[in-house]
Amino acid sequence: MTREGTGPILVSPMAEGIRFQVTGRSSETGARTGVLHTPHGDVRTPVFMPVGTQATVKAITQEELRELDFPIILGNTYHLYLRPGHELIERAGGLHKFMSWDRALLTDSGGFQVFSLRDLRHVGDDGVIFKSYIDGSEHEFTPERVMEIEGAFGADIAMAFDECPPYPSSHEHVREATQRTHDWAARCGESVRGGQALFGIVQGGVYRDLREWSADRIVSLDFSGIAIGGVSVGEPKQMMREVVEWTAPLLPDEKPRYLMGVGTPVDIIDFVMLGMDMFDCVLPTRLGRNGSMYTTYGRINIKNARYTEDFTPLDPECDCRSCRNYTRAYIRHLYKSDEILASRLATYHNLHFYQRVMKGIRAAITQDGLIAFRREFMTKYSAGDDA
Amino acid sequence: MTREGTGPILVSPMAEGIRFQVTGRSSETGARTGVLHTPHGDVRTPVFMPVGTQATVKAITQEELRELDFPIILGNTYHLYLRPGHELIERAGGLHKFMSWDRALLTDSGGFQVFSLRDLRHVGDDGVIFKSYIDGSEHEFTPERVMEIEGAFGADIAMAFDECPPYPSSHEHVREATQRTHDWAARCGESVRGGQALFGIVQGGVYRDLREWSADRIVSLDFSGIAIGGVSVGEPKQMMREVVEWTAPLLPDEKPRYLMGVGTPVDIIDFVMLGMDMFDCVLPTRLGRNGSMYTTYGRINIKNARYTEDFTPLDPECDCRSCRNYTRAYIRHLYKSDEILASRLATYHNLHFYQRVMKGIRAAITQDGLIAFRREFMTKYSAGDDA
Repeated sequence: MTREGTGPILVSPMAEGIRFQVTGRSSETGARTGVLHTPHGDVRTPVFMPVGTQATVKAITQEELRELDFPIILGNTYHLYLRPGHELIERAGGLHKFMSWDRALLTDSGGFQVFSLRDLRHVGDDGVIFKSYIDGSEHEFTPERVMEIEGAFGADIAMAFDECPPYPSSHEHVREATQRTHDWAARCGESVRGGQALFGIVQGGVYRDLREWSADRIVSLDFSGIAIGGVSVGEPKQMMREVVEWTAPLLPDEKPRYLMGVGTPVDIIDFVMLGMDMFDCVLPTRLGRNGSMYTTYGRINIKNARYTEDFTPLDPECDCRSCRNYTRAYIRHLYKSDEILASRLATYHNLHFYQRVMKGIRAAITQDGLIAFRREFMTKYSAGDDA
Repeated sequence: MTREGTGPILVSPMAEGIRFQVTGRSSETGARTGVLHTPHGDVRTPVFMPVGTQATVKAITQEELRELDFPIILGNTYHLYLRPGHELIERAGGLHKFMSWDRALLTDSGGFQVFSLRDLRHVGDDGVIFKSYIDGSEHEFTPERVMEIEGAFGADIAMAFDECPPYPSSHEHVREATQRTHDWAARCGESVRGGQALFGIVQGGVYRDLREWSADRIVSLDFSGIAIGGVSVGEPKQMMREVVEWTAPLLPDEKPRYLMGVGTPVDIIDFVMLGMDMFDCVLPTRLGRNGSMYTTYGRINIKNARYTEDFTPLDPECDCRSCRNYTRAYIRHLYKSDEILASRLATYHNLHFYQRVMKGIRAAITQDGLIAFRREFMTKYSAGDDA
């Protein structure tokens, strides 16, 4: 896979619990393939991680996630801490056991959720006080507390507690948040549970100097992997692209690079080209529940009247269970009738579509044809006239 | 299976599209086993038919229904006529094709739904005028119209259009409704689509004379099977039992006997003992969505706080997917979090429980031990202290 002239296979010496190998590189772009070895199996990168906010990827069983061949999924610390609580999950034997998932898990730190809340009560250098959206009770997240909570969940990969400022925010505000993110990152590194891999998060908003500063600081802290956070928070897409263009080259080649909360299939192809390895996003599941499906020929909204008597599959080039067994007309009827099966079939299909894109990306990098892959993908994907 | 002294195997000579064989009899009770041969496969009776109101058994895929080994399911004419419409379903190739179900199907006649509506506009000897619950538009069901609609659906078994009076209703009211049911039954017999089996429905409310009259009239009309309708509409359970006790012995031995809208697992055992062969009920699916699960040791409500840290399966004696893979604590968490997966896991389990009971019933009849089966079932089922 690694071809002559594209450099040796690198192995991170610093990983705790996990180990990352770069296995191939694109000569045309910054893309690479790799394997992330975890205590719960190997993850081939670039990888898309479905979001299991409340210990479930909405509408999908864990058996189906295995069937769809996802090697790693996400849990949200903020939600799981509030309900059912990290103590309960620890008594269940950890998040893997609680939700019956035997492959790799990553938990975020709750930073994104806490800072998107309206019920944020106090932000200080020590941590954040916030109110529960469930019962209004008051809670505090500090770096140490978050490491304790993520330790109780026991995911293969924990994320450091960070401050994620909204967009737009002033340079001053983002500078302060980024400073706190660095301090908290160091404190997370000191308090992470043994055996658990910890990823640091680069912040810095849309300011190049802050991104460069943050990358420098986070990289210096010897994390098992590095994430770019604070993107996809409402900024224009071109700005997000610039942030990744500034930041990705500053990240160590031998560590996995995770772009948080991104994105559409096209986004993912583009950011893989900039050297990113890991992605997560609620789009395939959320859009599925809302009746929007990814197809080879672009996104379709199944609620559109044109599908009323369309007795073809969601995607003519897809062989997933939903497409093998059911028609657009049937799935449209399920949506119009508010049936649970609508969400199930659409979510399953959308996740399968993402997997198909990721497999295509990995194969294209291996064959060193990523640019051609993108061109072919876009030719078909832009041909649809519905989205 | 048929033992000496319990009579010969009987084959109905009158079935159109279907054929029914009695294959075994209980010497202790009126129960029998049988096989209903349909154009879409054989149905072993006694059988429980899950309700697929809007062309989907709520929260469950057709693949899962096959996995659960259901040989026949129901569709609701009233709902499917209003949405997506019988013309669309006919253009899809019929209800089997529309919903991708290749086993047997039965459609009800819409009578029960139309007469439970508040927006019933007019009942006459010709038919019923009602308003759509979706958009308020006005529609008419006559026996001929319902046969046209059910013919478009193309289920293996269509039900005759009947008038189902509410409970309580006066003798006079029920007598009139029963008279209309008989007239409509004859008109349905004349207009049913060729090749489709038609079942007649005995009405008569809780009045013995009307039930006897109705059984006599419906049996005389040469249907492929006979249903007892107008039960489980709010009357006390003892009254429902009496209705079946009066009516079942009047039904021809060689035809399948269907008790509409019934019931709990215990109800089903009891009515099998009275000679009934076919059952349908929304209980396993509806209760599942509401957090109530059937177990060997009685029904449990998973939202109960006692299950918060119960890391055992829903039913310790169940080997369904839900019980093999997930715990009560996890499923409780999914309910508290309003997750779709809660409904999925519970519905799947409850349907599996019903199948387990039906398999037990059929085996017990074959071994002529139905009374002992009921006793053993009840001993365990009553031991639970949650329901």
